[in-house]
Amino acid sequence: MAHLPHGRKLNFAAGPSALPLDVLQKAQSEMLNFNGTGISVMEMSHRSADFTEILTQAINNLQDLLDIPSNYKVLFVQGGGTGQFAAVAMNLMRLKPNHSADYFVTGTWSQKAAKEAEKYGKVNYVLPHTKQFKGVPHVNHWNLDNDASYIYYCANETVHGVEFQEPPSHNPDIPIVADMSSNILSKELDISKYGVIYFGAQKNVGPAGVTVVIIREDLLGRAMPSTPAVLDYKILAANNSLYNTPPCYGIYMCGLVFEWLKTHGGIETTAEKSNLKSSALYDIIDNSNEFYHCAVDKEHRSRMNVTFRIGGSNGNENLEKKFLEEAQNLHMIQLKGHRSVGGIRASLYNAVPVEHALKLADFMKDFQRRFGEPEA
Amino acid sequence: MAHLPHGRKLNFAAGPSALPLDVLQKAQSEMLNFNGTGISVMEMSHRSADFTEILTQAINNLQDLLDIPSNYKVLFVQGGGTGQFAAVAMNLMRLKPNHSADYFVTGTWSQKAAKEAEKYGKVNYVLPHTKQFKGVPHVNHWNLDNDASYIYYCANETVHGVEFQEPPSHNPDIPIVADMSSNILSKELDISKYGVIYFGAQKNVGPAGVTVVIIREDLLGRAMPSTPAVLDYKILAANNSLYNTPPCYGIYMCGLVFEWLKTHGGIETTAEKSNLKSSALYDIIDNSNEFYHCAVDKEHRSRMNVTFRIGGSNGNENLEKKFLEEAQNLHMIQLKGHRSVGGIRASLYNAVPVEHALKLADFMKDFQRRFGEPEA
Repeated sequence: MAHLPHGRKLNFAAGPSALPLDVLQKAQSEMLNFNGTGISVMEMSHRSADFTEILTQAINNLQDLLDIPSNYKVLFVQGGGTGQFAAVAMNLMRLKPNHSADYFVTGTWSQKAAKEAEKYGKVNYVLPHTKQFKGVPHVNHWNLDNDASYIYYCANETVHGVEFQEPPSHNPDIPIVADMSSNILSKELDISKYGVIYFGAQKNVGPAGVTVVIIREDLLGRAMPSTPAVLDYKILAANNSLYNTPPCYGIYMCGLVFEWLKTHGGIETTAEKSNLKSSALYDIIDNSNEFYHCAVDKEHRSRMNVTFRIGGSNGNENLEKKFLEEAQNLHMIQLKGHRSVGGIRASLYNAVPVEHALKLADFMKDFQRRFGEPEA
Repeated sequence: MAHLPHGRKLNFAAGPSALPLDVLQKAQSEMLNFNGTGISVMEMSHRSADFTEILTQAINNLQDLLDIPSNYKVLFVQGGGTGQFAAVAMNLMRLKPNHSADYFVTGTWSQKAAKEAEKYGKVNYVLPHTKQFKGVPHVNHWNLDNDASYIYYCANETVHGVEFQEPPSHNPDIPIVADMSSNILSKELDISKYGVIYFGAQKNVGPAGVTVVIIREDLLGRAMPSTPAVLDYKILAANNSLYNTPPCYGIYMCGLVFEWLKTHGGIETTAEKSNLKSSALYDIIDNSNEFYHCAVDKEHRSRMNVTFRIGGSNGNENLEKKFLEEAQNLHMIQLKGHRSVGGIRASLYNAVPVEHALKLADFMKDFQRRFGEPEA
């Protein structure tokens, strides 16, 4: 396969992950001198008019893209998803007198979130305990608590490749909190159904080090007294994310991505492309006679992270190694599965072009032809 | 004055602030394809071999530059100085049974740090209360507590321009914590005298969104149970700053700055240049017959942030406005004093070339010649 322009590779990383080439080129062109200011965005006071404009534009574009209602605040914070595991609990656990919350654990990230929340209140595990995350158990097996301060779930689990197609059904009087780090801006959302949505930027949006929180205003101001100021949503909202110096360059990059998304068809387009990309791979998996094996229930398969083993459900590590080596030689990189589950993981975030997914699909077909069992 | 190359300006911002042009150019050249990887540093897994190398090199270079002893850990964290205001107290307040700490308040930042620490224990204010921060009161006025868990000070206060030339003398059995956000790497340090040194990168080191913590190993593992994982030094140290996704691109930029410092003479050179740059301005102030007025005691004047009023000790706002406008026309930017104190502030961090400070000095002389009182 010929190299891409600039020696670029086909990047299937799970996060930090691919960014649109246009966006990187714009950032590159503005690196020494942003918009005639004579300085880089990295060298600019966060209270300057120029940076204020960058921040305002980023917020406005995100509001447009996601159709965020006016009673929601958009915050740019630091600390990643892991910071939010604590922040969510510290800010919301006291919404009701029981200081308890309902957690859906469907993979590594929601598990970590629940564990962190245990520091700050009672965590009710909604789903039966499992070590094998293959989807979302049927609603008959859910144990929801009507006195919960909030309900928490992770919309897409990147390690196992499990995605909620819809938010879990629940008592609408209890605010629901969603970690959308890895599938934000990849499909239409009705924001008004949520109390809090947050996402680390480094998967579908921008560089690591920026986290976006979208919060309904009535949930502000309920933080535990011991909440660090940098995690207190009310303080962050009251200061338009400028209580302390924000991760300015990361916000700028996110803003460029939001702009890019708007000029490329918005969420309607990303949703369509996500379906095309992930279907191309799942179709091959499902028609591979188990040469490729995806452990996740069909209705909860992630459109963002396609996880599979090669050579049967437990994986043939030699074949998987061969697959990764050959992919690398074809300039397809960062396809190795998470170290905790092994196998292969192809991440197909918004910045991954459809053609890259189709090239991977072609390679998968060819690889099976050469290494799979001959058909009976 | 002729433009600098690339239309660049003379940047005296207090933070985020100037970066070395060489560093920005290197980042620019690697934006689309880092070191032949075919991807940007922003698009790279934080657990990849390439990023591990970036992180390791950054730590090694910082260890070299500061001569950090082997019983100290270097951590890259998120949340800025404000995050550390909480982290320091949450991690160290319980070192002794009184759960109290000694705080030197010499300006805005140490004041905020003390306020935040009050959430987590007893704060003993070492210095007499003041609203006018002009230096460090004489040791006879200090109220130190021998049962303090730690002693805290801010080595350089950017808003008022107050700098400790040496760490405050204290009982060496009590660990001392220094916020060196704005003067790190600008003079020789004996790290072994400190328990913790931390600095937000966005003044002397790199872009906003990266904070570096240098901590003596025996201080790890004493955090309050409610400490968020992202602020728990022990967790961060045990995972070499990779417990969660770090601000990868910011770390890369800091690493480039560390490399640049090493190839430009290290701290010996930055210390010498800091003295040259700040002396050039203070000499003009001191010889201006009070046309320029610096409120800070001579022995505590900051080499990093030269703060002054124009037209007497209360400042003539019309003259100050004129000064800022003329400076801007000469491509000297971000010279406005902090909104809480007014006047002028020239920040002279490591990336500000000596020639830029000398050009500012020339302008100050010329401005006084034109607008000052004629000599008697």
